[in-house]
Amino acid sequence: MRHLLGVEGLERGEIERILERAESFAEVSSRDIKKVPTLRGRTVVNLFYESSTRTSSSFELAARRLGASVLTIRSTGSSVDKGESLKDTVLTLSAYDPDVVVVRHPHAGSPEVVARHTGAHVVNAGDGKRAHPTQALLDLLTLRIEFGRLEGLHVAIVGDVLHSRVARSLVQALALVGARATLVGPPTLVPEGLGAPVSHDLAALADADVVYVLRMQRERMDEAFVPSLREYTALYGITPGRVRPGQVVMHPGPMNRGIEIDPRVADSEQALVTDQVRAGLVVRMAVLYDVLTVAPVTTQEPAGVA
Amino acid sequence: MRHLLGVEGLERGEIERILERAESFAEVSSRDIKKVPTLRGRTVVNLFYESSTRTSSSFELAARRLGASVLTIRSTGSSVDKGESLKDTVLTLSAYDPDVVVVRHPHAGSPEVVARHTGAHVVNAGDGKRAHPTQALLDLLTLRIEFGRLEGLHVAIVGDVLHSRVARSLVQALALVGARATLVGPPTLVPEGLGAPVSHDLAALADADVVYVLRMQRERMDEAFVPSLREYTALYGITPGRVRPGQVVMHPGPMNRGIEIDPRVADSEQALVTDQVRAGLVVRMAVLYDVLTVAPVTTQEPAGVA
Amino acid sequence: MRHLLGVEGLERGEIERILERAESFAEVSSRDIKKVPTLRGRTVVNLFYESSTRTSSSFELAARRLGASVLTIRSTGSSVDKGESLKDTVLTLSAYDPDVVVVRHPHAGSPEVVARHTGAHVVNAGDGKRAHPTQALLDLLTLRIEFGRLEGLHVAIVGDVLHSRVARSLVQALALVGARATLVGPPTLVPEGLGAPVSHDLAALADADVVYVLRMQRERMDEAFVPSLREYTALYGITPGRVRPGQVVMHPGPMNRGIEIDPRVADSEQALVTDQVRAGLVVRMAVLYDVLTVAPVTTQEPAGVA
Repeated sequence: MRHLLGVEGLERGEIERILERAESFAEVSSRDIKKVPTLRGRTVVNLFYESSTRTSSSFELAARRLGASVLTIRSTGSSVDKGESLKDTVLTLSAYDPDVVVVRHPHAGSPEVVARHTGAHVVNAGDGKRAHPTQALLDLLTLRIEFGRLEGLHVAIVGDVLHSRVARSLVQALALVGARATLVGPPTLVPEGLGAPVSHDLAALADADVVYVLRMQRERMDEAFVPSLREYTALYGITPGRVRPGQVVMHPGPMNRGIEIDPRVADSEQALVTDQVRAGLVVRMAVLYDVLTVAPVTTQEPAGVA
Repeated sequence: MRHLLGVEGLERGEIERILERAESFAEVSSRDIKKVPTLRGRTVVNLFYESSTRTSSSFELAARRLGASVLTIRSTGSSVDKGESLKDTVLTLSAYDPDVVVVRHPHAGSPEVVARHTGAHVVNAGDGKRAHPTQALLDLLTLRIEFGRLEGLHVAIVGDVLHSRVARSLVQALALVGARATLVGPPTLVPEGLGAPVSHDLAALADADVVYVLRMQRERMDEAFVPSLREYTALYGITPGRVRPGQVVMHPGPMNRGIEIDPRVADSEQALVTDQVRAGLVVRMAVLYDVLTVAPVTTQEPAGVA
Repeated sequence: MRHLLGVEGLERGEIERILERAESFAEVSSRDIKKVPTLRGRTVVNLFYESSTRTSSSFELAARRLGASVLTIRSTGSSVDKGESLKDTVLTLSAYDPDVVVVRHPHAGSPEVVARHTGAHVVNAGDGKRAHPTQALLDLLTLRIEFGRLEGLHVAIVGDVLHSRVARSLVQALALVGARATLVGPPTLVPEGLGAPVSHDLAALADADVVYVLRMQRERMDEAFVPSLREYTALYGITPGRVRPGQVVMHPGPMNRGIEIDPRVADSEQALVTDQVRAGLVVRMAVLYDVLTVAPVTTQEPAGVA
């Protein structure tokens, strides 16, 4: 891969290569000395226009465990705040000849803008409501470890699908590996046309191997997508009684305990939430490794100085 | 030590071991190349729910000088702000298999919550008004270097003891090593029952080897603990005339010059404030070293991925 | 050099030494492994009292590419916010025995305050409206690479000279190397007495080799320095028609496209903006190298602990 901008550009073989490498890195993570200095001397820039501990620290640790140097730039306290355009910020950063730019941005399509103006490899860490490909890959890894396969799995994605890049990327990724999704939630929050059947009734969970719970933002109530969080919880909150034995429960985090997920479910053996976080670290190591070593790097001609 | 949660769990022998190792690290700090790569490949997470340059940068530098990788997570700009519970934040971080989690939190007892949900060693960097054990240890180191002993020393702690975790931990630590404290300040700010005699009169300083000045927060005036900062300064501010020759003056920083401490005292030969900061760095190196090497590490079984 | 506080203290020979070393580092930057571990084990503290991505990340990367450890302290979230004086912050930091303190501060003269209270080398990363010496050096490097010489060049500096430390330092630096500046802009924003001729008419650009465009802050309109940004742009905005063939265009960034500079100029072959950023990285590497190796380091006697 040259870049990882979304799931739609991936092939099944690429996904499998990344998941396999991620599993090999998992072994390293359980050692006392967790570094594999494969990317020593390389520079990864984390360009985060949205706050996120989980994703930015996961990428930061992943890069460091591979021996790369990480520069994290957040919107707050940066020239981003002085109104500089994304294009100019990227041109500036690119002058440092980074090897990879990891970008999170509230606008869909921003990673493509970044890729157009840098010679570095670009990894999308979430853009608007569009895509979050490393989340989809870590979810696949979590599932493959849990079930020993991906083919034929059925994942019910429950909640605010409308605003979720996680859901969009996951639906695409499941299709690519021969698994399938059903989207479950209130009519206002579950759109048709995402390539997966829709249900407004939790009964649709019965047939699923996996209950994938999305975060329910408080803002959705203010924006009138749901009448109240209390009502949402009553109708769609995942309680112990709504999960059947043998099913596993996933959540991209951060969880709103007591809203979209009952604490008893979150803390149960069926929940794979920390497995997802752990998978996220090694998947991101594998993605960084993949873009930096598999594809030939087309370095920008260092104009002038070199 | 498995964790460093407070001073009360420490034994005198442990304190001495830490102080001795800290002194050996002090030697390294005076070299040109200041690294001791003892903890290479280890990961330290700094989880700071309160802003603090002094303590967080001291831990960060300490970890790095030992060769460890540091991930600093601040409340601002993290999922902490999205209302994630401390428990879930710790479960998430623990999925990265950190070796140590250093935590600062406004609620007393938070380090215990962290320790319950992680397989990592936990070091308390200040919780509420309860404890700040590394501050107490660095104060002991500063005193031991200055006086050549701790046994029998008398430390007068002056100021807002009521809101001070520094004072609470220091009183306990002094008792453990055979030294003693007197608490001095206005009746509203100096509680009984902390295990040290109380005085409301600076005359109590006469007998002390050390005048330990606490920071006086402007908020205390608004909250009516003191009628005015001016009056506080008049009654309890440490001026040159209120310190006798042979006494040393300490302060945990940051100082409010002209309020609790006169600038002439702060800048005098008697003040050990920068010695305390310097001691803080090597004490934190020693604490990280101690938890990581003396106690056997019980690593969490890396569920799933490994 | 012991410190780099401003341009006025530099000699021509020192400038040339730094520019030559910067060019040698440029070669390293074009390699796959970009590190030169010359400063391994050294500690650089970035003390930033103003937000700045460009300058702080440039110094951070520069230090890391030389193998130094970097501690970045920003005003926000630090004891700076608790009202600690610059002097006390510096005394605190100095207790960690850093090798270099890089300081950016809104008050002119702050780097001198820092230098008075630390044993470390001090590099000014911008103080008030006074000086920004590494910017001036990177501009010289950019020019030398572009023109093959500095002697005799004529640089027209256009815009808000009054509030610009960049302009002040650049005028001085050009004079030192035998080049010259003309200051161009509205009478309210271009002061006399900076050691360069003044013009209020863009016709003055005709004779220049370089059009150096300064950032036009929106605040200047509110403060009535200009009637409106629209009028400023009409009179002084750098459009394609206002630049002649053979001239190059520079800007310290971040650019306000469409205000002081037309996007067609910013994106043209004549613009050297990313070359400046690239030069900034290697110039800062050279400055850190210079203060740390050429001058004998007078380390503070580590009082007490050592």
